[in-house]
Amino acid sequence: MSRPPYVSFAVRPKGRRAGSAEIVEAVMAEIEGGTLPAGSRLPPVRVLEQQLGISKNTVQVAYDELTARGVVETREREGVFVVGGASVRQPVPPLPVLRPLPALGPGTPRGKGTNLSAVFIDPDLLPQERLAECARSVLRAPGLATHYDPQGYPPLREAIAKRLQARAMDVDPDEVIITTGSQQALDIVARALEVRRIAVEDPVYAYARLLFENLGLALTPLRLDPFRGIDLDAWDRALAAARPGLLYAISSFQNPTGYSYASHELAGLLALAARHQFAILEDDWGSDMLSGSEYRPMLRVLGGKPVLYVNSFTKKVLPSLRIGYLVAERSLVPTLVAMKRLGTLGAAWLTEAILAEFLDRGHYDGHVEAMQRATDARYRACLAVLEETMPQGVRWTTPGGGPSLWLEVPRSVDLAAVSHELAREQVWIDTSVAAFSGEPHLHGVRLGYAYLSEDALRRGVTMLADAIRTRCPASRT
Amino acid sequence: MSRPPYVSFAVRPKGRRAGSAEIVEAVMAEIEGGTLPAGSRLPPVRVLEQQLGISKNTVQVAYDELTARGVVETREREGVFVVGGASVRQPVPPLPVLRPLPALGPGTPRGKGTNLSAVFIDPDLLPQERLAECARSVLRAPGLATHYDPQGYPPLREAIAKRLQARAMDVDPDEVIITTGSQQALDIVARALEVRRIAVEDPVYAYARLLFENLGLALTPLRLDPFRGIDLDAWDRALAAARPGLLYAISSFQNPTGYSYASHELAGLLALAARHQFAILEDDWGSDMLSGSEYRPMLRVLGGKPVLYVNSFTKKVLPSLRIGYLVAERSLVPTLVAMKRLGTLGAAWLTEAILAEFLDRGHYDGHVEAMQRATDARYRACLAVLEETMPQGVRWTTPGGGPSLWLEVPRSVDLAAVSHELAREQVWIDTSVAAFSGEPHLHGVRLGYAYLSEDALRRGVTMLADAIRTRCPASRT
Repeated sequence: MSRPPYVSFAVRPKGRRAGSAEIVEAVMAEIEGGTLPAGSRLPPVRVLEQQLGISKNTVQVAYDELTARGVVETREREGVFVVGGASVRQPVPPLPVLRPLPALGPGTPRGKGTNLSAVFIDPDLLPQERLAECARSVLRAPGLATHYDPQGYPPLREAIAKRLQARAMDVDPDEVIITTGSQQALDIVARALEVRRIAVEDPVYAYARLLFENLGLALTPLRLDPFRGIDLDAWDRALAAARPGLLYAISSFQNPTGYSYASHELAGLLALAARHQFAILEDDWGSDMLSGSEYRPMLRVLGGKPVLYVNSFTKKVLPSLRIGYLVAERSLVPTLVAMKRLGTLGAAWLTEAILAEFLDRGHYDGHVEAMQRATDARYRACLAVLEETMPQGVRWTTPGGGPSLWLEVPRSVDLAAVSHELAREQVWIDTSVAAFSGEPHLHGVRLGYAYLSEDALRRGVTMLADAIRTRCPASRT
Repeated sequence: MSRPPYVSFAVRPKGRRAGSAEIVEAVMAEIEGGTLPAGSRLPPVRVLEQQLGISKNTVQVAYDELTARGVVETREREGVFVVGGASVRQPVPPLPVLRPLPALGPGTPRGKGTNLSAVFIDPDLLPQERLAECARSVLRAPGLATHYDPQGYPPLREAIAKRLQARAMDVDPDEVIITTGSQQALDIVARALEVRRIAVEDPVYAYARLLFENLGLALTPLRLDPFRGIDLDAWDRALAAARPGLLYAISSFQNPTGYSYASHELAGLLALAARHQFAILEDDWGSDMLSGSEYRPMLRVLGGKPVLYVNSFTKKVLPSLRIGYLVAERSLVPTLVAMKRLGTLGAAWLTEAILAEFLDRGHYDGHVEAMQRATDARYRACLAVLEETMPQGVRWTTPGGGPSLWLEVPRSVDLAAVSHELAREQVWIDTSVAAFSGEPHLHGVRLGYAYLSEDALRRGVTMLADAIRTRCPASRT
């Protein structure tokens, strides 16, 4: 590491030129005043010589005197530094007072132990080597881009629009905004909304709820029971009363319930939006996760351009790329890009270029198909071990594939105790308490099967079943 | 591109098994109900055969009938799709209503023409090839990281802490939070602040002001005149009256004035903070830009750990990397990282790893020195051409090097007209109107000399001087 910059100090000569005594005086005054703190580097002799128009010797005499007084020291090849003991502290400003830490729920550790609630995909199923190839190819092009496009790398926006068009969406690359994961897409929309009330499923993805609350939005929770589906009449009443500006809906593999909207629920939701005049933000992160038959059309396809649409490559390609996107009707794009600029100005160009290359080479579809086959197999294995091990009274949804289902446990089972017991064995579950608005109306666990090998899943689920059984009066017989 | 997922529809057989008529009926009902929109792909024959437990032939008869009715068509190697004409639109939800577009000031186009107000560094001075080498080296390691650390890549945090320690800062890697440029650091702090009032210089970096306003913070403007420095008494009165929770100070090369705080102003500010109990957020983006003698100690060094400190590699290394960082006292880190997670969860791992490699190889210091030499030369060239061309009554600051100075023009000169005239010749200036709180108390231009070659700078400044002169009564003589 080269030398730190040197700190200037003001010498005010009494005569035409400064003498060494005046230099000593100036340095002492700044040290005592605290503006030359311990560890500061003084200007090199040649610099001061030039600045003050005096001889090298005058400066050196001053520095020798300061050294003799013990307030500075010379470090070889580094320069002259103010020594610790001599410095006077400045008045200390107070610590910033921050809002209380939001309740993010228990962190689910990765990489060690068995995380039964992860909705991530097993890293072994992710296309790391192909991405590295794409990165090397991008770097072979002459020069890295200096600047970024605040809306996102244009070839990536084109590749995304092309994919969506193939899925019946009427969309142009100009209507795509690249974001740092889908989280930033939610952030942008929430910042920009004029009506500061938003309707959300209850339970809902905890980071969305906390984000909206942190930005000062009022929430209207809409109860979602993954076993019964959506009670459209109840939603109608709640929405008529609350008049939100927007409804945020995770239409496929809703987090944390794993629920996917049925066709008539999608249509019903659009009818409610038209009746009560709220906009829709569709989070479609999950639709690529399902290999086939349970797939429903996107709200953005059914309802057209007014529907805001967010999706992400994060989980499906590589979480560490952090690339998501927002699709918005053309007239909304300038404001939404401005909101992105307020948050981060832009995002890393290189990762956007790598993903564009990955899509351009046609790797994504093959990857998704292979990933779906693997997760479908894990899904079936998960159902088998649930059938085999879970005591009576425990039930679960059957989403048909994908990353996760909802496991509902009798109210009498103390899930906090189950969680605590499993954690001692390095097995983690998330009871999603932070995902509910108020008192949870479900009593269960998000069970993810895409992250774990079949062996780890079997072992973890068996331990979970045992921990539930010992607390489950109905099945002690 | 492979085939899109197919959309499921519900067949309700009247007997034990569905017949082809019931399949036709189900599809027609969903098409008419709008949940099978134009462009939707129907399940392949073999899938429906399996799902419904019927013969392949029954399905094929149904699809043939739907084809004959003109509501579906078979595309070779793609599947069976719903055709446009037959689809019924769902009720259309309203467009989201967004807040008015924030006044971001005139965009300063890059890459074409001559941008006299850019505070970016000339891309020719940036270490693109060395960064590409570091990227290739990172990619040679086996496997890309799957996940990201929400606080930032640990080796990068270590390298940053090491650099800051060498500049007399008492800091640990655990106290460094990597951000998407310095903008996200401001965003994180602004989200987290308990007292929702913040003091800012006037003028101040427009994206900071707009960010704070967008997040609902009240602002206390503190007048900054780059020719006179800071009126600490006036600041004292304003701060005593307003009682902000935090003061945001750009201590080196303040944007847009190019002003750097003098040592006694830094000390005075800390005294005010202690007296009125506001916290300090120091934005130190500029201190690496100055080759030497004008460098002052950081507020974070003088005031110690309570001072929040933000800096960025964006402009100095490569804007498209988008890497900045926030230094915060240990007890504040969990909340600030949680705020980052609310905004973007994390950032791209790969670019963080590339920058860590770049720092680890010791490239940064050599790069900064070369960049400083080049920008210092451009600074001197800029002063020379200003002396040579500017009419009487125009004055400018002399920051001693770095990226930009402030050029102040007589009030009688219509700067909007100057700007308009120059824009016709592809020469761009920014009068920083969006940077002021209320009526601008300065009347001038941020003049950047680090972005342009000396030739381009000379040509642009000469044109600016001409445009001012024709509007400047005092110098028509």
